[in-house]
Amino acid sequence: MSMIRSAQVTEPGAPFRIVESDRPEPGRGQVRVAVEACGVCRTDAAFVNAAFPVSFPLVTGHEIAGRVDAVGEDVTTWQPGDRVAVGWFGGHCGVCDPCRSGDLIHCARLQVPGWAYPGGYADALVVPANALARIPDAITAVEAAPMGCAGVATFNSLRNSAARPGELVAVLGLGGLGHLGVQFAAKLGFETVAIARGDHREADAKELGAHHYIDSAAGDVAQRLQQLGGASVVLATAGSSAAMSATIDGLTPNGQLVVVGADPAPIEVSPFQIIATSRTVHGHPSGTARDVEETLRFAALTGIRPRTETMPLTDVQAAYDRMLAGDAHYRVVLTPGR
Amino acid sequence: MSMIRSAQVTEPGAPFRIVESDRPEPGRGQVRVAVEACGVCRTDAAFVNAAFPVSFPLVTGHEIAGRVDAVGEDVTTWQPGDRVAVGWFGGHCGVCDPCRSGDLIHCARLQVPGWAYPGGYADALVVPANALARIPDAITAVEAAPMGCAGVATFNSLRNSAARPGELVAVLGLGGLGHLGVQFAAKLGFETVAIARGDHREADAKELGAHHYIDSAAGDVAQRLQQLGGASVVLATAGSSAAMSATIDGLTPNGQLVVVGADPAPIEVSPFQIIATSRTVHGHPSGTARDVEETLRFAALTGIRPRTETMPLTDVQAAYDRMLAGDAHYRVVLTPGR
Amino acid sequence: MSMIRSAQVTEPGAPFRIVESDRPEPGRGQVRVAVEACGVCRTDAAFVNAAFPVSFPLVTGHEIAGRVDAVGEDVTTWQPGDRVAVGWFGGHCGVCDPCRSGDLIHCARLQVPGWAYPGGYADALVVPANALARIPDAITAVEAAPMGCAGVATFNSLRNSAARPGELVAVLGLGGLGHLGVQFAAKLGFETVAIARGDHREADAKELGAHHYIDSAAGDVAQRLQQLGGASVVLATAGSSAAMSATIDGLTPNGQLVVVGADPAPIEVSPFQIIATSRTVHGHPSGTARDVEETLRFAALTGIRPRTETMPLTDVQAAYDRMLAGDAHYRVVLTPGR
Amino acid sequence: MSMIRSAQVTEPGAPFRIVESDRPEPGRGQVRVAVEACGVCRTDAAFVNAAFPVSFPLVTGHEIAGRVDAVGEDVTTWQPGDRVAVGWFGGHCGVCDPCRSGDLIHCARLQVPGWAYPGGYADALVVPANALARIPDAITAVEAAPMGCAGVATFNSLRNSAARPGELVAVLGLGGLGHLGVQFAAKLGFETVAIARGDHREADAKELGAHHYIDSAAGDVAQRLQQLGGASVVLATAGSSAAMSATIDGLTPNGQLVVVGADPAPIEVSPFQIIATSRTVHGHPSGTARDVEETLRFAALTGIRPRTETMPLTDVQAAYDRMLAGDAHYRVVLTPGR
Repeated sequence: MSMIRSAQVTEPGAPFRIVESDRPEPGRGQVRVAVEACGVCRTDAAFVNAAFPVSFPLVTGHEIAGRVDAVGEDVTTWQPGDRVAVGWFGGHCGVCDPCRSGDLIHCARLQVPGWAYPGGYADALVVPANALARIPDAITAVEAAPMGCAGVATFNSLRNSAARPGELVAVLGLGGLGHLGVQFAAKLGFETVAIARGDHREADAKELGAHHYIDSAAGDVAQRLQQLGGASVVLATAGSSAAMSATIDGLTPNGQLVVVGADPAPIEVSPFQIIATSRTVHGHPSGTARDVEETLRFAALTGIRPRTETMPLTDVQAAYDRMLAGDAHYRVVLTPGR
Repeated sequence: MSMIRSAQVTEPGAPFRIVESDRPEPGRGQVRVAVEACGVCRTDAAFVNAAFPVSFPLVTGHEIAGRVDAVGEDVTTWQPGDRVAVGWFGGHCGVCDPCRSGDLIHCARLQVPGWAYPGGYADALVVPANALARIPDAITAVEAAPMGCAGVATFNSLRNSAARPGELVAVLGLGGLGHLGVQFAAKLGFETVAIARGDHREADAKELGAHHYIDSAAGDVAQRLQQLGGASVVLATAGSSAAMSATIDGLTPNGQLVVVGADPAPIEVSPFQIIATSRTVHGHPSGTARDVEETLRFAALTGIRPRTETMPLTDVQAAYDRMLAGDAHYRVVLTPGR
Repeated sequence: MSMIRSAQVTEPGAPFRIVESDRPEPGRGQVRVAVEACGVCRTDAAFVNAAFPVSFPLVTGHEIAGRVDAVGEDVTTWQPGDRVAVGWFGGHCGVCDPCRSGDLIHCARLQVPGWAYPGGYADALVVPANALARIPDAITAVEAAPMGCAGVATFNSLRNSAARPGELVAVLGLGGLGHLGVQFAAKLGFETVAIARGDHREADAKELGAHHYIDSAAGDVAQRLQQLGGASVVLATAGSSAAMSATIDGLTPNGQLVVVGADPAPIEVSPFQIIATSRTVHGHPSGTARDVEETLRFAALTGIRPRTETMPLTDVQAAYDRMLAGDAHYRVVLTPGR
Repeated sequence: MSMIRSAQVTEPGAPFRIVESDRPEPGRGQVRVAVEACGVCRTDAAFVNAAFPVSFPLVTGHEIAGRVDAVGEDVTTWQPGDRVAVGWFGGHCGVCDPCRSGDLIHCARLQVPGWAYPGGYADALVVPANALARIPDAITAVEAAPMGCAGVATFNSLRNSAARPGELVAVLGLGGLGHLGVQFAAKLGFETVAIARGDHREADAKELGAHHYIDSAAGDVAQRLQQLGGASVVLATAGSSAAMSATIDGLTPNGQLVVVGADPAPIEVSPFQIIATSRTVHGHPSGTARDVEETLRFAALTGIRPRTETMPLTDVQAAYDRMLAGDAHYRVVLTPGR
């Protein structure tokens, strides 16, 4: 195959179209990945709509799983055939001050696939070798793909939080991120609360491992959390900033609202809500390639898998629309199958 | 002396009046402290104006230094004559879950002098023995008094913050808390920035140990902080919530806005300001009796002292008005001197 | 019942004998507990043999579960009938510097049941109210008893360790502590290795949740750990200090040897084993009453139970001998059944 | 200058000899540094005597300060003329698992100057660009050189320790590392104890900032530390492992013996010394290039400087012998001066 297909957007908000182009060759320190699966994430819409500074034509997609297909010069630790994932973390520079401090996720020149370079809505793509995460045998490409963003964002923020095993942890939102957040919280040993709108998701939440369910439309969420003893952590995966703010009074002393899902509106927090109680509002990014790898290993160890529906790359527009409408059963994953 | 004087407020917002009453006797587990100095803190106004649920007549005052005067039954570790401070932390219950976890500052029944029981605007008061902090010889009562609230709030929040020695730490506000915050920051080994309104305080700030000064009226504070490399911590000791919010973009990755000064308005923080950067907005209470003791010891070790003006208890109204008007040279301290 | 039975030892190393005595009454701040189960711990032998400074006649036993039977003056948070556990942590003073710092486990006057006062080899005992931990409904007294020492020592040291979920954690020893350590490690999300002497325990270890088993008699333990990727934590629950030392080279960078089981001989650690790798040898005590409570809650949440064999109090000598001989199926628990 | 001089050792234990050779050229990702100062560290003797697996002829020296002289291909963040230090951390691979985790100091292929490649006993050397640390203007090359090993090892281990400002920290040994450790401890806000053999160093120790001095030859060091309240941290910069072991009982609960100086004999630690008290024996390596940079910045901020005596490169043998004999006034630094 000397040509590859990719799903391009030519201007802000335009529909996807499948185009063929020459297969890209990896340069020094780069690797070509043959895509086997790519998740459709809500953030892709921000790129498509140019909410971030992107250039067109654009190939988005940053929840990628596949195989190493070719390696460039100076790449010594990856070989063709290696099963790999590439998520939001698409490569670090290695020379800025955060990189020199080992704080790779805060690289001043962090590259995101589908933003800094053509992403995973394609048959193949070229990425910096330092963007790669190994996939354990037990996990398929379709299962691995969402772990590069939705998975690592929830696992990493939970393991980095101050919640201690056995404590109450709430996951706000039960979509692509949240349904993984609930699973990770339960397997990390937390008494887990799922918070979502409506009561139709309760059965699902419990099946995913939640010990409790709060319907955010049915009353005061903070009060409900306090009735359960108070949450050490609320992991906000989605929902409006107002919904996030509304959980703060449901936190225990030293409790944390950990924000991984974005909404342009500000979260509002009164000093009086946080001073005497030592509460915290904390943002958390996804995670590095190594974090993705550890997310995948933890999933393999504990049996966590995303719930996905797969659609072929050629149906990208339908897949994207389904995600936008909130109709996806947790995560739509594109596969190259012709 | 079988009678004591105290400065009472008989209804919300009423003026202080000096009244005489029987000297109180300490019960089981309690101690009577002969007051030698009591700081006048902005929070006292919240009690006087019944912004918290207080009962009248009210004797406020929670920055107390003096000597143990008499000890009640079962008090084994304090003797008459011991030099002691009592701050915002006026006693913990020992039996609630936070107390059982050793998290004494979050005691569910935390007592504050001047709120839970008559405070330090008096010749003497009775406090639970577990509210006492030892004062080192090197520190006078007038110097020790403000350490029980202003001192411990700033020292404790800084040492508990994520800032590492040598990193940039900003102190927002340069009043009773802030002028101690700057001193503590400098002696804790931080590159210290003082932020206040106007340029007339710059000389003072530098004298207190600040390496840099930012006039918050003269431009974008966040930008100024970034020009200095970004702040690991902004310690917000005062100012409006809007002023606090305005510093968030001046934080480094993993940076923290630590809030110790309260304003009823909410702090506003956009998810986009904190997710990629892992920033945090964190509330911090004052500290326990032991924390006050450690604050005093650190001050003795490093030469830190509050700047105070002393006024006799009988001038309490003038002292209070001076504090309210912002005219105090950092801290007014009442002394019982007749 | 106005008399109680207890199992006394009258001089160092003497046999147990069952004696009747007046039922003790709780004083101020104390509670009487009707014993329903008491674990037989190896440390009891240190008391019986006066390896610690004890006085005779001695009633040992510090893994106690039962019900509050009577409460003394000033006890406000416990009522007769409450199901409670009392473990190694048998009460703190509340007034020493560690207590004032909230570091209750390091109380300078820490009391241990069966040492500071008559312990749980009895129908009932009197303890300070601050020694009590609540038992969840899902856990029986026999199951709860070993959690006060063996359970909390392993759970608490693991959750306080630096191991992150998904990392390799080894448990050295598979007895009373170790068989709980393996269960806790697995449910805390660690890839778990059990290390014991001989291969006959492998099946048990796997059943308890271990992912790997190392027979310490069959080769170099450190090397085996490195073949598995290196251990982030080795939890040493038993075995000689030599066996502990032999695991150090099996630790990853930043890895910790966490010691909860004691052997009089010294652990030997070369600077060269730990400097470049940032390794640590760390001792960990059991935990406070609140820690015991959290251990029990975590066990209830995740289905962890000790493996026990119960014997009546009147068979105390046989139970003790069985424990000493290492014949107990993990933990012998005494019950008062007549 | 197209030739450079270096001080070579041709076989284990042989004397140094000055040889001339072609000036080396930096390859891709490398930089040539013109040496202005190079510290003579005790570890150099381990290389000279082949205690580590080195190859001969050998040019040792890993406490280097100078200027960037030439940059190789792909080096974008350094320019000729930049003032730089290179310490023990002489470059990381960027692709091993520790590097991918941001744990650069534990790089599986960590390079040390004077071991992995010719070191700083020379006019110039070539190093990987990621080994470089910037030197602040306020610090001279001679002052900066020892900071790359002795400085960073002490500053980094202290700031990474659990000691809190105001607590008692002891520095064991008062040589090249120790005299910096004492300064850093004092400026980090610790109540600082210097421990050394004999009383002739007390005045020096106090001048360097120590609040207390313990003559280790004059009695029980642990007991002396406990008389001062117990040490939160003992930083072992030198001395025999026996001397290190002898400090353990001088630690507070949760106290740490932090080992940065090596002795082949094992440290001995009894489980009984560490379990009830939660004590720790912890090894700490030096630090990354970024850590060196932060060490230098902290030194510039707080006025810390090493005490050095400079000798020309041509006197390398005398300098080395002086260091070996312990006659150096803290640190001998070689300068290229002809």
